[in-house]
Amino acid sequence: MSYSPGLKDIVAAETRLSSVDGEAGELVIAGYPLKEIAESARYEEMAHLLWHGTLPTAAVLDRFTGELAACRPLSGAILDSLGSAAKERRPVIDAVRAAVASLPTRDDASDARTLVAVLPSIVAAYWRFLHREEPVEPHPGLGHAANLLYMLTGEIPGDNGDGDGGSGDRGGDHVRALTTYLNTVVDHGMNASTFTARVIISTRSDFISAVTGAIGALKGPLHGGAPGPVLAMLEAIGDIDNAESYLRKILEANERLMGFGHAVYRVRDPRADVLSRAARSFFTQDHDLYALALHVEKTAIELLEEYKPGRRLQTNVEFYTALLLKGLGLHPDLFTPMFAIGRVAGWVAHCFEQRADDRLYRPESVYTGDDTSKWIPVNER
Amino acid sequence: MSYSPGLKDIVAAETRLSSVDGEAGELVIAGYPLKEIAESARYEEMAHLLWHGTLPTAAVLDRFTGELAACRPLSGAILDSLGSAAKERRPVIDAVRAAVASLPTRDDASDARTLVAVLPSIVAAYWRFLHREEPVEPHPGLGHAANLLYMLTGEIPGDNGDGDGGSGDRGGDHVRALTTYLNTVVDHGMNASTFTARVIISTRSDFISAVTGAIGALKGPLHGGAPGPVLAMLEAIGDIDNAESYLRKILEANERLMGFGHAVYRVRDPRADVLSRAARSFFTQDHDLYALALHVEKTAIELLEEYKPGRRLQTNVEFYTALLLKGLGLHPDLFTPMFAIGRVAGWVAHCFEQRADDRLYRPESVYTGDDTSKWIPVNER
Repeated sequence: MSYSPGLKDIVAAETRLSSVDGEAGELVIAGYPLKEIAESARYEEMAHLLWHGTLPTAAVLDRFTGELAACRPLSGAILDSLGSAAKERRPVIDAVRAAVASLPTRDDASDARTLVAVLPSIVAAYWRFLHREEPVEPHPGLGHAANLLYMLTGEIPGDNGDGDGGSGDRGGDHVRALTTYLNTVVDHGMNASTFTARVIISTRSDFISAVTGAIGALKGPLHGGAPGPVLAMLEAIGDIDNAESYLRKILEANERLMGFGHAVYRVRDPRADVLSRAARSFFTQDHDLYALALHVEKTAIELLEEYKPGRRLQTNVEFYTALLLKGLGLHPDLFTPMFAIGRVAGWVAHCFEQRADDRLYRPESVYTGDDTSKWIPVNER
Repeated sequence: MSYSPGLKDIVAAETRLSSVDGEAGELVIAGYPLKEIAESARYEEMAHLLWHGTLPTAAVLDRFTGELAACRPLSGAILDSLGSAAKERRPVIDAVRAAVASLPTRDDASDARTLVAVLPSIVAAYWRFLHREEPVEPHPGLGHAANLLYMLTGEIPGDNGDGDGGSGDRGGDHVRALTTYLNTVVDHGMNASTFTARVIISTRSDFISAVTGAIGALKGPLHGGAPGPVLAMLEAIGDIDNAESYLRKILEANERLMGFGHAVYRVRDPRADVLSRAARSFFTQDHDLYALALHVEKTAIELLEEYKPGRRLQTNVEFYTALLLKGLGLHPDLFTPMFAIGRVAGWVAHCFEQRADDRLYRPESVYTGDDTSKWIPVNER
């Protein structure tokens, strides 16, 4: 038996859900190259694709959208808990973890729908409690992403023409951009949170437990916790003229450059392309920030090659996530919760797949201690 | 890269916490063979040993016991949530998962103490809510196990002379037996719940998230969910004369015999020895059940060799867990929660170890789908 720290290069599962090719910079979601689908599908279609292997027909999509919408309302007990957590100013992702952990378990199919549908309601309600506003009840006539924006802001966003509902013009871009973001992060191979969910299901536990565990893994800064600092960096740079000197200072100090480098990708993260386009399409009110981001990206890539030649450190998903979510008017404290809202359909898909596989994860450990200690009663120590 | 389903024979961590030798039937906890320590140590000593690598002196143990006792009380918000969960008759382990998930995160050392100290308070309070009784506040003068029995029953158990507190005579055996049980299950190599906790910590997440995830894994019947059925089997057999025919019927139908067989052990689970002795020492009021269990064990081992020759299926930890916890007067619905109360010091120890290791778990997956699907708008499907 050999020990590979972090299970590097160890295959933990076969999956039909996503394929990550780090050398080529390609991400496939259930058969579809990411850029083929992320900018077109509604989030409900992505969930259906991942769970059932096919895109739904119009009739099936209608029914599925309605089933999800029916699961959105929060119980009084969860609203009460979120309210008391907000009084203690708990971090958003901690409040989300607690609320998800308190959901009742039914059967896998209902739990799956509940988890996807209710996560936006939890995040939005908690965010409003934190700001001493009453939660906004979900709007059954709005699609997944449009309803999420509505519950956060209390305003019905514009119609983007792809069936998410809404009215007006400007906000339609926002709904589409948010949907594209959620689709882009919906699944990504055997990352730590997805793996956590699969290990939990492997004991024949339930989907609520698995997704609760996954949220706990996602909140770690090595996983889902870094888009916030990207924005802080852009804001600290402030102006295109400061970019090079700012970045050089970080690299000279041998500190990590937020938004660059990935455990798997050796070329530009394919999700960065999609998110960059999505951000650009609606980034009208603050074009300076978008131009600054493009400039910082270009400069950082050049400097990374200069300071760390051959390491092939490239733009990762976090860089344009920060820009896109900021463009949507979302506070950095919501970035990791938004990641969870996007990833949950993927977690659930892995739960279904692991359930069908039904094989307990039970790796080995190597003992490095001794085995001959003798008991000494406390009064003789 | 090769795929080993369930990560069988793959080493996922180096650890100084426990060593499981399945061929020899030996379990070492932080240097001590299980039988050297399980029947002597207080639970507080086990936690200290696992977290710090040494048994505490009397002064250190006193201080540590006091620090843990100070963390026992539950907040009003948690009591309220447990109360509403009880109204919906949620399973005990689900209520425990939700309550642990709602604990605030401080620093690792405080979270560690809180998790160990508060789990008995959560289980006991919820159990009493389920039975329409007011929770019993923790008793700061009682040791870990004695206080747990006190919070469950409202009665101070007898003194067993090893410093756990309490008074009277009969109950002292109960405190010692419960302590021995908690010690016996405190750690066991890279099982699924411990592994879950380590994967979550590996993202630099927090101990509350890790133990919440571990509880979700433990609740699965392939992991912590089987001692209840052992008791159901003993009760169904009822009398020594029925044992052989009952067991043959199960084996003829090729069903699983509860309490026998283990993924790792090929000889008698060393924990079964310790628990069998612990159960016997206080099993006076229902000696018939104990005698029945011994007879069922002996008969089952013989029949397993007859029906599944060479498989070396032996008594596992669940068989005598069921007997011991039943002897303590605990309902089968409390068996998995009691397992969690015992295992939590081990989970926390692995969190500390993983924190020091600071290496992200990021295994691979093998994609088995295609990668050439083309987007078709919903109205053309």
